Amino acid sequence: MKRLYLIGIGPGHPDFLTLQAADAMRRVDVFFLLEKAGRGKDELIALRREIMCRVLPDGDYREVSAASPPRPRAVDRDAAAYRAIVADWHAEKRRIFAELLTKELTDGQVGGLLLWGDPTLYDQTIGMVEQVLRELAEPAELTVIPGISAVQVLAARHRIPLNRVGESLTIITGREAEQVDPASVHNAVVMLDYNASFQRFVGQEMDIYWGGYLGAGDEVLVAGPLDAVLDELLRVKAEVREAKGWLMDTYLLRRRGTGEPRD
Amino acid sequence: MKRLYLIGIGPGHPDFLTLQAADAMRRVDVFFLLEKAGRGKDELIALRREIMCRVLPDGDYREVSAASPPRPRAVDRDAAAYRAIVADWHAEKRRIFAELLTKELTDGQVGGLLLWGDPTLYDQTIGMVEQVLRELAEPAELTVIPGISAVQVLAARHRIPLNRVGESLTIITGREAEQVDPASVHNAVVMLDYNASFQRFVGQEMDIYWGGYLGAGDEVLVAGPLDAVLDELLRVKAEVREAKGWLMDTYLLRRRGTGEPRD
Repeated sequence: MKRLYLIGIGPGHPDFLTLQAADAMRRVDVFFLLEKAGRGKDELIALRREIMCRVLPDGDYREVSAASPPRPRAVDRDAAAYRAIVADWHAEKRRIFAELLTKELTDGQVGGLLLWGDPTLYDQTIGMVEQVLRELAEPAELTVIPGISAVQVLAARHRIPLNRVGESLTIITGREAEQVDPASVHNAVVMLDYNASFQRFVGQEMDIYWGGYLGAGDEVLVAGPLDAVLDELLRVKAEVREAKGWLMDTYLLRRRGTGEPRD
Repeated sequence: MKRLYLIGIGPGHPDFLTLQAADAMRRVDVFFLLEKAGRGKDELIALRREIMCRVLPDGDYREVSAASPPRPRAVDRDAAAYRAIVADWHAEKRRIFAELLTKELTDGQVGGLLLWGDPTLYDQTIGMVEQVLRELAEPAELTVIPGISAVQVLAARHRIPLNRVGESLTIITGREAEQVDPASVHNAVVMLDYNASFQRFVGQEMDIYWGGYLGAGDEVLVAGPLDAVLDELLRVKAEVREAKGWLMDTYLLRRRGTGEPRD
C-alpha cells in the first residue's frame, strides 16, 4: 500500500518541529512540493529547505515539485458562477496531486507533504487529499501529524493563555470579523484578516494581542487596549508590509472584565 | 536575573515535544515539579520521566518537587463563599511557588516547568506564574514555549480539519456545553467535559469526533453521526474509565451541511 504523511512543521522556524514530525520525515521516500505563488512563498521554501537540512542532512530523499494552479480571483459577479470557477480550480488541484501519487510513488513507499503551521487549522490540504485518496484506483493510507500553529505562538509570545478561566475561545476568519456584531465577541482569535478588521472593535473595552510573521526571525508584536494602540498597530502593519512586500498576521481580541472569576 | 520557562510537552507521548522545547530543557538548571493529586497524575509523572530520559539522558539537572495544595471541592453553598475558598487556594499555590523561586533558583539560573499539552490552552499556570513574578522582590523573566494540544491530536487522529472552509472553531468547556443552546453550536471542540454533555446535542444533525487519552498508548477514538454512535460512545467511555480508573477526553461536535461552499 502507498502511504502519505501530512506533516505540520509549525510557523516560520525549524524549532517548532516536533520529534514526531522529524521521525516521520525520516520515513518519507518522496517529498511532494505543491508550489503556490503569492505572499510568503519564498519564506515557505526557505523554511522547508532549512528543515530538510536539519532533519535529513545527508539529503537521502527524493523531491517532486508541481506548480499548484493559481487561486482564481474573487470577481464581482454572481456567486454561483464564482463557486463553479472555484470548484474547477479544486478539481484541477486534485487531478495534479492524484497524478503525482500515481506516477511518483510506488507500492510500499511513503509520500510526504510539509505544511506550514498545523495542518488541522485553516488549511485545506486534508480535505483535498482525503478526496484524492477516495478516488484513487489503489488504496492508500493517510497519516496527519499535528504542528504548532501561529495561534499558539501568538499566545506564547504575549505570555497569555488563549482563554481565561472557564472562558471559551473562538477562532474566526477576517471575513467573519468584518461581519460579526462586535458586541458578540468576547475572546476571539482572528486569522487571515486582510482588511485590519480589528478597527471595527474600537470602543468595545477590548485588548488586542497582535503578531506578524509569528515564529520567524522578523516576528513583530503589538499588545494593549485596542483603542490606545490602534494607531501604533496600523502604523506598524503598514511599515512591515512595505518593507517586506507582504504580511501574515494573527491577533486575539479580548473583552476586558469578562473572564469568569471562578477557577 | 532569574529566568523561568513554561514548556509545553504535548499530550501523552514524548514524540510531541518540539525541538524548541527540547532545546529549552537543556538550558534549564532546576525543574520544578508541582505535584497534583488526582486523575492522570501517574501518567504525567511517567511522561515527564520519559521525556527527561530522552532529552537529558545524562541526568545533568536538578529537580525540586512541592505538593500542590488540593483543589477545594465545589460545595453547594453560596457562590461568594466558594469564590473566597478558591481565592485562598490560588494564593496558597502562589505562595508555595514564590518560595520555590526564591529559595531554589539563584540569580542567572533558569527554572523550568513541564506542562502537559499546550500551556496556552485551559491551563492556569501562565496566569499564576505572571502574578508570582509581579509580586517577587527581584525581577525575573518568563518564557512560554507552546506545545501540541490534545485538540490538535484529536483532529489529526481523525484526519479532519478543525474547521471547514471559511468556518469558525469554538473551544468550550464541558460546563458551557451543559448550558449552551444546542442549536447555536455548529463547530465546537469541548474540553474538560465530565458529564458526557454531548448527549444534549442528539437530534441536531451533528457528527462527533471523540478521543480519549489522546496521544498516549491507550488512545481510543470514536467518530460518526452523534445519534448513531451515542450508545457505542457511552459504552466505550464507561469501559475505559472502568479499566483505568479515570478518563481524559475531548471531542469535536460538527453540524452537518453548514460548512461554507466557497473555496
